[in-house]
Amino acid sequence: MLSVDLNCDMGEGFGNYSIGNDRDIINYVSSVNIACGFHAGDPVIMDKTVKLALEKGVAIGAHPAFPDLLGFGRRNMIVSSDEAKAYVIYQVGALKAFVEANGGELNHVKPHGALYNMAASDYKLARAIAEAIYDIDSSLSLIGLANSKLIEAAAEVGIKGLNEVFADRAHSCDGTLVSRSIAGSVIHDVNQCYNRVLGMVKEGKIKSMYGKDIVVKADTICIHGDNEMALEFAKNINIKLKEEGISIKSINKGRRV
Amino acid sequence: MLSVDLNCDMGEGFGNYSIGNDRDIINYVSSVNIACGFHAGDPVIMDKTVKLALEKGVAIGAHPAFPDLLGFGRRNMIVSSDEAKAYVIYQVGALKAFVEANGGELNHVKPHGALYNMAASDYKLARAIAEAIYDIDSSLSLIGLANSKLIEAAAEVGIKGLNEVFADRAHSCDGTLVSRSIAGSVIHDVNQCYNRVLGMVKEGKIKSMYGKDIVVKADTICIHGDNEMALEFAKNINIKLKEEGISIKSINKGRRV
Amino acid sequence: MLSVDLNCDMGEGFGNYSIGNDRDIINYVSSVNIACGFHAGDPVIMDKTVKLALEKGVAIGAHPAFPDLLGFGRRNMIVSSDEAKAYVIYQVGALKAFVEANGGELNHVKPHGALYNMAASDYKLARAIAEAIYDIDSSLSLIGLANSKLIEAAAEVGIKGLNEVFADRAHSCDGTLVSRSIAGSVIHDVNQCYNRVLGMVKEGKIKSMYGKDIVVKADTICIHGDNEMALEFAKNINIKLKEEGISIKSINKGRRV
Amino acid sequence: MLSVDLNCDMGEGFGNYSIGNDRDIINYVSSVNIACGFHAGDPVIMDKTVKLALEKGVAIGAHPAFPDLLGFGRRNMIVSSDEAKAYVIYQVGALKAFVEANGGELNHVKPHGALYNMAASDYKLARAIAEAIYDIDSSLSLIGLANSKLIEAAAEVGIKGLNEVFADRAHSCDGTLVSRSIAGSVIHDVNQCYNRVLGMVKEGKIKSMYGKDIVVKADTICIHGDNEMALEFAKNINIKLKEEGISIKSINKGRRV
Repeated sequence: MLSVDLNCDMGEGFGNYSIGNDRDIINYVSSVNIACGFHAGDPVIMDKTVKLALEKGVAIGAHPAFPDLLGFGRRNMIVSSDEAKAYVIYQVGALKAFVEANGGELNHVKPHGALYNMAASDYKLARAIAEAIYDIDSSLSLIGLANSKLIEAAAEVGIKGLNEVFADRAHSCDGTLVSRSIAGSVIHDVNQCYNRVLGMVKEGKIKSMYGKDIVVKADTICIHGDNEMALEFAKNINIKLKEEGISIKSINKGRRV
Repeated sequence: MLSVDLNCDMGEGFGNYSIGNDRDIINYVSSVNIACGFHAGDPVIMDKTVKLALEKGVAIGAHPAFPDLLGFGRRNMIVSSDEAKAYVIYQVGALKAFVEANGGELNHVKPHGALYNMAASDYKLARAIAEAIYDIDSSLSLIGLANSKLIEAAAEVGIKGLNEVFADRAHSCDGTLVSRSIAGSVIHDVNQCYNRVLGMVKEGKIKSMYGKDIVVKADTICIHGDNEMALEFAKNINIKLKEEGISIKSINKGRRV
Repeated sequence: MLSVDLNCDMGEGFGNYSIGNDRDIINYVSSVNIACGFHAGDPVIMDKTVKLALEKGVAIGAHPAFPDLLGFGRRNMIVSSDEAKAYVIYQVGALKAFVEANGGELNHVKPHGALYNMAASDYKLARAIAEAIYDIDSSLSLIGLANSKLIEAAAEVGIKGLNEVFADRAHSCDGTLVSRSIAGSVIHDVNQCYNRVLGMVKEGKIKSMYGKDIVVKADTICIHGDNEMALEFAKNINIKLKEEGISIKSINKGRRV
Repeated sequence: MLSVDLNCDMGEGFGNYSIGNDRDIINYVSSVNIACGFHAGDPVIMDKTVKLALEKGVAIGAHPAFPDLLGFGRRNMIVSSDEAKAYVIYQVGALKAFVEANGGELNHVKPHGALYNMAASDYKLARAIAEAIYDIDSSLSLIGLANSKLIEAAAEVGIKGLNEVFADRAHSCDGTLVSRSIAGSVIHDVNQCYNRVLGMVKEGKIKSMYGKDIVVKADTICIHGDNEMALEFAKNINIKLKEEGISIKSINKGRRV
């Protein structure tokens, strides 16, 4: 039976601040990526979010970022490979401790924001991230942009790479995303979004913005959780996938991709 | 055969800043407590310091603190039990990941500065710290001031508490340290310091500042590493202990106290 | 003609986070206290909030705090007088630059959270704050709890102290607030709140929780801006005050108290 | 009579950490650039360093940076113009308050590290910095790399730009510095360094690495203060300049360049 994972970022508040509606969106996903304190999240929020995820039975991942709370981890920073690797070990280790202290098991790692985007096309950075994960626990998987350097680095290093796709983003002919700055890169028609997801999950391919058929393995679909429309989309993609006989489940350590 | 542990704080630089002479002092101790990023230390420094400790074969502990880099973790802060517990899990988890990524095993936890001092007399805070450690790995031990609430909380929670003593500090009749603000609290005569240490290790007791014999179990002795005199003291206490037939070794997970 | 100032804290978001509804509440106050980056606020938010305040014509104050973003400046910290003074100069200086860069003039300083509360009863801390303000610009005024050490320190140092009162808090016989931990300290009846404010503004006195008449000069009333009820209260206190012939205006540099 | 300014970065410690030997090097410079808390420096250190500078009678500048304490402000970050401008206003405002609280007057601004380097070739970033300075006080001058976008932006915005030169760095034919990654970019021969400085100050020109004569106005020379060799160089450049009849003095607000 066909299945796909739906993942969502969570625990992105900080101190007195909260953001996103984690308690609602978690009902529509199979995996969550929890902020680790560098772009968002703090120890108290991490503990609460881990408890929520364990209660809901979703797979738990760490969501490490550049050390840029002020910029929510969305600003490009030039760091060395040693720095990147150490930042990932630090953040994943901290989250892993909360998961284990609460009786659970860490499942995956998904880099956040600028770290994710830069590593998608920078092999050296992607490699540093993959090595950090391997050194912590080689059974952890790495969620990265489908067909990107992150997936390549995971394979080279010897950890499982999970291809992430986006429902509302157009693809270039090489399988990567078209930059948001280019017209047509973001798809606003919801039905088209559903169809794209179904195509990627069922057939493993999609038409690029320029008409060419490209291979895109869709291991996991990114679900946003920060507004009402996102919540609505999450609900409906659940219904559509089930109607097509596709089950929604996390790709966990025990399950080969 | 009698033995005692000598422990020293390490990895207390930050970014471009360095402090202490870790590479020298590590030759005279059996355990190190590595800063975890809240009062000092950063991911790159943590990784380097863990590698150094593994190379030297000393027992590795985490050295968590209040989130106060500006005050080097030395300023009292009023935090809730939930906050304290989460702060310890976060920091210990981060350091544990570096230790395990480098092929080692975390041995103990020693709170830093104001967190250590406040918890020595505040059972609620001490309890939060002990619970955090228990939840991460109940075989980790907790270094706390001898006879303090930290040792009491460790016992209640079910982890090993290691009594820490200071060579140069006078004791009150209840076995705790005399406040630095009181005349006579700090002992400046080096020979007297050696004798105090030997008395605590060999006889398990010491005279309080007021002449009373008090029981002080000396599991581990705190060695400072931030100046030349401290290094000199560390060298000499090694010689003195060995002359008395006392071996210097860490109290690790496999060894009952 | 009688008048009183209504003040509200503002600009308390950080980076990607927002909090409070500054754009609504600002219509009902005569003064705002803008966060300076230590407990909340960042340079971009400070600039935006200053522009909003100048557009609305309210008096602008700096809202310095302990360096504790994680705790929103609400946790007691033990800092030295030198540290406290330097923290206030830093934060007030930063905000003053935004005010002046936008063509305005800084009017006052109101310490935030734990810094405000601790300084209300700790003369040494209050004095450090007052001296910092004096050294920057001796015509700036200091908003502090009515009858507290902050008002005393302002007078000693030679700056204007503005007595702040709270509509919903009971008073002790010495004129200070009854601790929130004591039953009856918070007044939930809205009409009683209005009457208390009117009593303080018109007669300069109020009954303590124990029935005694106490002198409370009400220079400025604290208005919260973080929920719908607070907004409702702000609207209504405006109406009540005007019905009683009391005008709402800031106490600015040019106006002697 | 010919004169030139020698400037040095100062106050780059943080909390418990110190760096550089400010007390020695200050005797050989006419201007200092004081860290403002983003890459280094904290309120207490800023106050101390300002007091030292006032005591020595050197011109005081602010040394703003990217918000990257962990990377000492040396890592490239992509920030918007609004962010860059607000970061500069914040930091310059904070330092200005310390200078004025101590009875002095702020003289100039020199961006630090990656902010300086990126702005040297990025007009948009340079412009944001120049506008921030203009908005705070249009009589402040901006120290930037000679012939760079910073000097261009200063002129466009209407503030004084001071051309900074480096004794030990080779120049490209367009007058900018040759990247450190290119062989020959750093000059190790001390006498050659002295001659380069004298050439720039006396004749206003220098030979590029490729032999071409280029115009380089040397308003101010950067002096490092972080090691013994730097101190030695500072002493000797003072002697050499005086031997050539060139006086060392800051270019202050009252003196047209």
